[in-house]
Amino acid sequence: MDASSADTSLLPLDQRAALGGGASFWRTKSAPGVAAVAMSDGPHGVRYQSGAGDHLGFGASDPATCFPPAVGLAQSWDPDLAHRIGGALADEAQAAGLGVLLGPGINVKRDPRCGRNFEYFSEDPHLSGVLAAAWVRGLQSGGVGASLKHFAVNNQEHDRMRTSAEVDERTLHEIYLRAFERVVRDARPWTVMCSYNRINGVYASQNRWLLTDVLRDAWGFDGLVVSDWGAVADRVAAVDAGLDLQMPGDTAGDDAAVVAAVSDGRLTEAAVTRAADAVARLSARVAAGRREVTVDVDAHHRLAREAAGRSIVLLKNDDALLPLDPSRDVAVLGPFARSPRFQGGGSSHVTPTRVDSPLDEIRARIDGRVTFAEGFRLHADGSADASADDGAALRAEAVRVAGAADVAVIFAGLAASQESEGFDRDDIDLPADQLDLIAEVASAQPNTVVILSAGGVLHLAPVHEAARAILGGALLGQAGGGGIADVLTGVVNPSGRLAETVPLRLQDAPSYPHFPGEHSRVRYGEGIFVGYRGYDVRDQDVLYPFGHGLSYTTFEYSDIALSADPDGVDAVVTVRNTGRRAGREVVQIYASVPESSTSRAPRELVGFGSVDLAAGDSATVSVRVERRDLAYWHDRLDRWVVEGGTYRIAAGASSRDLRIEADVEIVGDSVRQDFDAESTIGELMSDPVGAKVLEEVLASFGPLGEDGGESLGIDMVRMAASIPIGRAVRSFGGGGVSADDVQALLDSINSRR
Amino acid sequence: MDASSADTSLLPLDQRAALGGGASFWRTKSAPGVAAVAMSDGPHGVRYQSGAGDHLGFGASDPATCFPPAVGLAQSWDPDLAHRIGGALADEAQAAGLGVLLGPGINVKRDPRCGRNFEYFSEDPHLSGVLAAAWVRGLQSGGVGASLKHFAVNNQEHDRMRTSAEVDERTLHEIYLRAFERVVRDARPWTVMCSYNRINGVYASQNRWLLTDVLRDAWGFDGLVVSDWGAVADRVAAVDAGLDLQMPGDTAGDDAAVVAAVSDGRLTEAAVTRAADAVARLSARVAAGRREVTVDVDAHHRLAREAAGRSIVLLKNDDALLPLDPSRDVAVLGPFARSPRFQGGGSSHVTPTRVDSPLDEIRARIDGRVTFAEGFRLHADGSADASADDGAALRAEAVRVAGAADVAVIFAGLAASQESEGFDRDDIDLPADQLDLIAEVASAQPNTVVILSAGGVLHLAPVHEAARAILGGALLGQAGGGGIADVLTGVVNPSGRLAETVPLRLQDAPSYPHFPGEHSRVRYGEGIFVGYRGYDVRDQDVLYPFGHGLSYTTFEYSDIALSADPDGVDAVVTVRNTGRRAGREVVQIYASVPESSTSRAPRELVGFGSVDLAAGDSATVSVRVERRDLAYWHDRLDRWVVEGGTYRIAAGASSRDLRIEADVEIVGDSVRQDFDAESTIGELMSDPVGAKVLEEVLASFGPLGEDGGESLGIDMVRMAASIPIGRAVRSFGGGGVSADDVQALLDSINSRR
Repeated sequence: MDASSADTSLLPLDQRAALGGGASFWRTKSAPGVAAVAMSDGPHGVRYQSGAGDHLGFGASDPATCFPPAVGLAQSWDPDLAHRIGGALADEAQAAGLGVLLGPGINVKRDPRCGRNFEYFSEDPHLSGVLAAAWVRGLQSGGVGASLKHFAVNNQEHDRMRTSAEVDERTLHEIYLRAFERVVRDARPWTVMCSYNRINGVYASQNRWLLTDVLRDAWGFDGLVVSDWGAVADRVAAVDAGLDLQMPGDTAGDDAAVVAAVSDGRLTEAAVTRAADAVARLSARVAAGRREVTVDVDAHHRLAREAAGRSIVLLKNDDALLPLDPSRDVAVLGPFARSPRFQGGGSSHVTPTRVDSPLDEIRARIDGRVTFAEGFRLHADGSADASADDGAALRAEAVRVAGAADVAVIFAGLAASQESEGFDRDDIDLPADQLDLIAEVASAQPNTVVILSAGGVLHLAPVHEAARAILGGALLGQAGGGGIADVLTGVVNPSGRLAETVPLRLQDAPSYPHFPGEHSRVRYGEGIFVGYRGYDVRDQDVLYPFGHGLSYTTFEYSDIALSADPDGVDAVVTVRNTGRRAGREVVQIYASVPESSTSRAPRELVGFGSVDLAAGDSATVSVRVERRDLAYWHDRLDRWVVEGGTYRIAAGASSRDLRIEADVEIVGDSVRQDFDAESTIGELMSDPVGAKVLEEVLASFGPLGEDGGESLGIDMVRMAASIPIGRAVRSFGGGGVSADDVQALLDSINSRR
Repeated sequence: MDASSADTSLLPLDQRAALGGGASFWRTKSAPGVAAVAMSDGPHGVRYQSGAGDHLGFGASDPATCFPPAVGLAQSWDPDLAHRIGGALADEAQAAGLGVLLGPGINVKRDPRCGRNFEYFSEDPHLSGVLAAAWVRGLQSGGVGASLKHFAVNNQEHDRMRTSAEVDERTLHEIYLRAFERVVRDARPWTVMCSYNRINGVYASQNRWLLTDVLRDAWGFDGLVVSDWGAVADRVAAVDAGLDLQMPGDTAGDDAAVVAAVSDGRLTEAAVTRAADAVARLSARVAAGRREVTVDVDAHHRLAREAAGRSIVLLKNDDALLPLDPSRDVAVLGPFARSPRFQGGGSSHVTPTRVDSPLDEIRARIDGRVTFAEGFRLHADGSADASADDGAALRAEAVRVAGAADVAVIFAGLAASQESEGFDRDDIDLPADQLDLIAEVASAQPNTVVILSAGGVLHLAPVHEAARAILGGALLGQAGGGGIADVLTGVVNPSGRLAETVPLRLQDAPSYPHFPGEHSRVRYGEGIFVGYRGYDVRDQDVLYPFGHGLSYTTFEYSDIALSADPDGVDAVVTVRNTGRRAGREVVQIYASVPESSTSRAPRELVGFGSVDLAAGDSATVSVRVERRDLAYWHDRLDRWVVEGGTYRIAAGASSRDLRIEADVEIVGDSVRQDFDAESTIGELMSDPVGAKVLEEVLASFGPLGEDGGESLGIDMVRMAASIPIGRAVRSFGGGGVSADDVQALLDSINSRR
């Protein structure tokens, strides 16, 4: 059976039904002509359990390279890097005999508190989609299938298996489905994993609109839809809606329920066959992609280090404190320097092949004296212990060590127990003892650098206040220690950019009052204004904007040129390295529609690129802006629409550091609809044909008020413009014109437009 | 036919149908035994057109007392005053032969830009409801029916005849319907007017949920539902949903459509009879209330002046600049001083019996020299003319006049053309020439007072910056000039309080990104967090908080005592006048639920009272907090629920000037529901019976991971708590337990709780 013609229709019904449920925790069933497929967790590493495990699939996994989780990788803004990591993961999956790796996770980061944000890329669907598509291409080019997850609108952990995300259709399409649409269309993942939650009341696993109307019919998805593990509340409803594979197994009871439902007519046999065919097609794809691979563990560790270095964001660097002069004495502080936080907790948690110690890696790069002090204490389970009796003593010792060195480097962040899959944070604060340490060290040692490790956004205002330089490390994978040392010392010139806004206060977050909901319901009240779209629409100050990231050199932008064609816009901008050090600049392209007819974010990321430049060099950077990225979802027409008119295209170093911009005219999609009785007088008057015909009708009204509205203090013409023509005539026309007359009039106008 | 037994069932169907449509613009039809009823616009004055008018009902009206519009009256926080004005309006309506006065308008002020906010009371439904109920009682005690409007969720003018307000049920009940519910239950208005807009897709006029399920069935409304003028898009659908009377007339075509719909079975005859009976009952009420009245125009003007004085808010009064010493020389600036803005444009626009000139009234109260300068110019139509060539010259003259006096009093505000029924504002700014004038005068004359006249909230940060004292006049009706002079000179000690927050920036408004929508749809994304609830939940700074208002004296709060009973809480607080002048203090009672199980605003207004105190006197103020005002709408149970637990009750001089607080224990309503397969392990474990039974089931799982989750960096117990029991057993139970087993288990638990 090959991938393009998987056909299980000759199998008995019960075998077809059985294919729609897993065999065990990590395997599908086999059937005549259909080999079982092995799957494993792991967006940033292969979590393969060769041991027995347990009912919940939570046994220890075999060692595998832990690449930077999505929260880190996204900060690279580097699709090529994502592609290469996807390829490396395919090799490790092949070596473990796996056919599908359960990733990438591309849910939009709606709220900084979501406990699983470390597994997701960005608050922006364009960035998420481009990076994830590259990752999927890389993985699948290695013969291993991706599982694009969690489809969809799974933006919190609180009550995640029941909560209904209540979201309007425009927001669904523009924000929460947009990255999925891009990856499905561009990278054709072999599988999509439906999420636990409900969407507007209907479980994702049972959501026909989501799994069939949108995913298959609109986007052309030809792969398999698998449930998140335990996401199926009603298998029959799920198969009917478009789910192909229920996981985990054993699912004998539910397989039988499917057969029974076909017997009594509640489910079509075609739906069962569709699901079985999808399993067979996946099995054939896996077989076709099968390769013998020997993993080069060292090479993968080097790739992980490269990725870590590229994913670090230089948030602040006053007086060019960084890079460190290797001859200086460095005080390294904080337990994370020896036991780094480099991945998140939950199903993505990998047993690494090795772990770089940041302290050791710094020692390897620094010629001066490198001293260490604990500064604060973590519990054995990795949690912060703010109440430790010896907290003051630890800080005092750290301050002493820092004062005796030329520079202090503090490793701060969240412990594993403070954020993970399964729950959301209540706040975004660093532990108080860490903030105390930073403040005390910084007042004793002006050359203080803070390096942050956390899976989610932090409240950084007090850190920004205290430290002279800050590196945003997010989570960097097993080679993060090396990557940090490379950036600290300038071996790597940082080029990472924030994939998520750092607000001044959690309360400023657009979703703040609407998270995480209650009674198994969460209302996405902020609508399309998620992330920087929300901070921008209210013109709110933020600490570090989306796209922010400094370099050890500087870049200058000039000469933007735009050329539009029917499929999009080419934006070409000249970038010059004006500093004294080679570096990479990420060029971000944002679009605005100044005279938009609809409410839109003040600007949206529509493309990005990057360039490596030696000191003094310049180059042109060409970024393709696709037409689809200029569109908005028209919720009356229920489709994407590109407005016609002037678009402002800006190239910038962040969403709030736009360096150069120009305007381009775009021919819009037609949105013309026939007039009807609910069309207003104003709408008719703005149409040449409508205006002409309407004048006759309005004549039947008599004068608009004895005095044109003056006695009421109003502008009658403006007020009348909002009245639907049908009601204007019926309620205010004096009885001279009937509903039929109105319709005849409208037909006549519509036919002549 | 009397009001309690109106019965039109003996009339022929066509006559019953005809009663459901108006006879003319302002009259209902008559029928045997049913007299026609005359109606007129006018929440704050009787807009009676004795002349012919036109098709749109926009002819000039007869003179009538123009009391402060709701935007002004609300600032009094004085239900007794609202009651007396209602009574005075009844007298004027009786004198004009009217049976119904079309008011009050009690829509919640969702966004400062709504063009009709001047006709509404507040951003808070409690304040709106209490004041409107008093107004309705006052009017109806005079034998004239009220028409509570615009029912419902009519919070903008943009596309008002079509737009769909998309609002969740909790927000509907807690914010947008709550004041209507209070007035219907407490004051029993004779009529309710349905609004133009749609609510969640369904026109208010055709909304069975709104007009029947909520209004009649849940609240017990026994009056007549009339359409806003022109709000009926489909009369048959409207009658079916619960509309009784379509206005305006003539509605012959729609009356015939109703008869036809009964004939072909699309509409029940009972619905037609219900509507006709409602018209007959209204007619009987009007007849029973009919009185011969001679209006004392002077007395009503005095009442209007009293109301104006009580409705002015002293926003700022640095160094006790106010009240003015009558012996000083006063420079009065701005055209509004001679031609005041005192009401809004549109259907509520009254032809006043007279208009007080603020300048003349100030002259009457000031013994020193009172000079006047224009300062800026208004167009003939009342609009501001910021581009006037002579702007600089006008300002220079005003600065000269101000500098030569002891005090400058600037009248600033919005012209009639800048805000009115029919359109919304795009911003909340004062015209630039007025801001320039205020800044220039204030720098020449430190003793500068600004008096503001506008129907909506203004951006006042620059005024606050410049002026030493500010009076918020809103719109004060025809006697506003006298009221202003009374307050300026201390004849009246101001006691008004803001009924709406003045934000630092329009962009801070909770609804800002979600107003006014597009494509005939507006999403109420801010949910329940409207007005101060929204500023408070994000802990945002504001310029003047809800409830703010200064006095010429000072008050001290002490000794709060709370006593709960099954129907509510009595809050008693001691207030002492610690200044040197008699004054009235408005005591505001706010409730919080610190340990709430649901998301709530940090505080909500649940009661208020006031006390008049001579200098040095003290008194206890007792405010009854009704149990219903402590409730929230439980959107899973679909009813009001009072949480059990500790409530914090605070008494304050504003929503952000809480002076004293105490806690009280409230016995909550039961919210217990039976467990089902979607109940989580955590929910079951938190129940004593559930926990005991569940232990047996969990034993069938085997250990929770080989290492309790440590290898995944997670807390397994916490993660498992969120899994619904049905899926836990089916997906992770290893196949040993069936769905039937789970249900039997749950039945057993439920029966033993």
